Amino acid sequence: MKASSKEGGRRAGWLAILLIGLLGCADETPNSDAEAAAVPTKVYEWKIITTWPKFLPGAGMSAENLADRLRMMSDGRLDIRVYGAGELVGAFEVFDSVSAGTAEMGHGAAYYWRGKMPIAPLFSAIPFGMTAQEMNAWLRYGGGLELWRELYAPFDVVPFAAGNTGVQMAGWFNEEIKALEDLAGLKMRIPGLGGEVLERSGGVPVTIPGGEVFTALQTGVIDATEWVGPYNDLALGLYSAGRYYYYPGWHEPGTVLELIVNREAYEALPADLQAMVATAAQAINDDTLADYTARSVAALDTLEREHGVLLRPLPAGVIEKLREASLQVVAEAASEDELSQRIYDSYTGFMQGVRRYTDLTEKAYLEAR
Amino acid sequence: MKASSKEGGRRAGWLAILLIGLLGCADETPNSDAEAAAVPTKVYEWKIITTWPKFLPGAGMSAENLADRLRMMSDGRLDIRVYGAGELVGAFEVFDSVSAGTAEMGHGAAYYWRGKMPIAPLFSAIPFGMTAQEMNAWLRYGGGLELWRELYAPFDVVPFAAGNTGVQMAGWFNEEIKALEDLAGLKMRIPGLGGEVLERSGGVPVTIPGGEVFTALQTGVIDATEWVGPYNDLALGLYSAGRYYYYPGWHEPGTVLELIVNREAYEALPADLQAMVATAAQAINDDTLADYTARSVAALDTLEREHGVLLRPLPAGVIEKLREASLQVVAEAASEDELSQRIYDSYTGFMQGVRRYTDLTEKAYLEAR
Repeated sequence: MKASSKEGGRRAGWLAILLIGLLGCADETPNSDAEAAAVPTKVYEWKIITTWPKFLPGAGMSAENLADRLRMMSDGRLDIRVYGAGELVGAFEVFDSVSAGTAEMGHGAAYYWRGKMPIAPLFSAIPFGMTAQEMNAWLRYGGGLELWRELYAPFDVVPFAAGNTGVQMAGWFNEEIKALEDLAGLKMRIPGLGGEVLERSGGVPVTIPGGEVFTALQTGVIDATEWVGPYNDLALGLYSAGRYYYYPGWHEPGTVLELIVNREAYEALPADLQAMVATAAQAINDDTLADYTARSVAALDTLEREHGVLLRPLPAGVIEKLREASLQVVAEAASEDELSQRIYDSYTGFMQGVRRYTDLTEKAYLEAR
Repeated sequence: MKASSKEGGRRAGWLAILLIGLLGCADETPNSDAEAAAVPTKVYEWKIITTWPKFLPGAGMSAENLADRLRMMSDGRLDIRVYGAGELVGAFEVFDSVSAGTAEMGHGAAYYWRGKMPIAPLFSAIPFGMTAQEMNAWLRYGGGLELWRELYAPFDVVPFAAGNTGVQMAGWFNEEIKALEDLAGLKMRIPGLGGEVLERSGGVPVTIPGGEVFTALQTGVIDATEWVGPYNDLALGLYSAGRYYYYPGWHEPGTVLELIVNREAYEALPADLQAMVATAAQAINDDTLADYTARSVAALDTLEREHGVLLRPLPAGVIEKLREASLQVVAEAASEDELSQRIYDSYTGFMQGVRRYTDLTEKAYLEAR
């Protein structure tokens, strides 16, 4: 919504600059000093395709936010139009389309490309893995980003961290989970590594597109579903299908959202625009987590007060089994090839150190508070 | 170090652009399209003064990082020179100097301006307050930033969040703290609200400049000191004066570092440079926390393995007393005036909601992991 009105404003702005250029009256342009008189510079008209429905709260707004900032910072020189899933290509075609240069940019999450690169989920979220703060530390200052670039390089795709959901919720269940036995035969919509972990713990992972989750849960085709957290889950109306809302999100403890850029397009940008892309992505990384955190508070309140949702912690015995299965499942993804093993070793090595630090700081503080 | 070599590079770059402009051979400029041929645009040569020693790990690098990014994004149009504490003005003169326009920008933390605005610490860190993730959520999407702008407006200073240390450590002690009684008469270097809380809990807060902390602790002038966390504390050598390293940092659970900009200077910037300042600040906000987190892991390892530092949790009874005193101390700062009360109400209202969400997500996950 914001984007389209801004776009109109931008066009009017360019028209004004053009007119001013023709009339030679640069002094009348407010707040732009001598720049308006400069020779018109090259405009990069780019597309960003996303794996999210257009204007989805949180994740779906990251690309809009990114495009707005880049347009403002570049004074219109980098002008990116945002496409929701299915508008230009389907959600799961985003990576290939950016790789092929059909669109210059994409926004999604690395675990969607697991079919192509089994180790990819380590750059978004893995069961019992690192939190948002820990992931950012690994990516920026622990060698993670370099490995991510190496993994995507053969596809001519350059990744950036550009958003995080924080720790998610475990999902919606229509019956209570009181012990490990309750997972036996449980049909749950939970894709990816989380699904494999559920399977090894006795459950039946089911793959259903987002749009069908609500009906499947309501009609009993599935017994449970995970989604994201209060902010996104409230919007999807899941509370009226599954009454019990479980926590914590063991399967997605700090999902990194990614900006991916076609290498050739990126390298053709002048250095100043390249710097803007990198800096805007990192600002969005910060902003999206703040958005999820703040908006989930209000959404959680609505879910409990208005919709009578019942919050439940996963029992310790269930957590223990899921943790054990998670370690196996992730380690198996690493055995694919030499690069996968290096990525796994870097991730697990960093996590071992950082979790001790997190225990002494964040965890100890939250327990003391 | 980085800054000065970059500066040389930048000057050479401008000289090249000037020569190219004179010779009319824009095509030879690599990677800059038509821009090099444009009429030279206005360069803003700014100063950023900081409350940190030049090149201090973590906090001291935020302003360097910010200046580097702005220089790259603006192609040299916003060219900011970084000054450490004492180079141009003293650490505690930063706010007044930015207010007066002596420097266009400053980097520090809001609690340093408590003498002028007793409520200011709520925009950096308060005892038993919000974590980094929670603070970012409040500032961006909970109304916090607008209140912060309102508080600084009479001084013609515009604040931005630009860095976070995460949860700090409780500090270095030369004797163990086993019960509340051990705080009685304890002389500890702990400034600000934390110091007041210690005083109400039986201790004796002492104010000593950073440079004298080590000697004071070693000679017994003080019994304990807080600083930041492993990354900064290792650099200061505190491990050889106080043997016990306590956690968690109840007094600074997610300290926001601030970028402050002189209003007149900010408003004189063209809109694209204003957007760059805001986006670079938010990128630095993300980056500094990643830096602290990653580097603290290695520093903690060094402290324990090489220097035999002993980690200790503050006992539950001590935490309980400190929490109780903290609530009083913070509430008193709020009673100053109407705006202070509004800021306090916004902070505490947001915190009440977000801590429940944090308990269900981050805390529950860290306990399950």
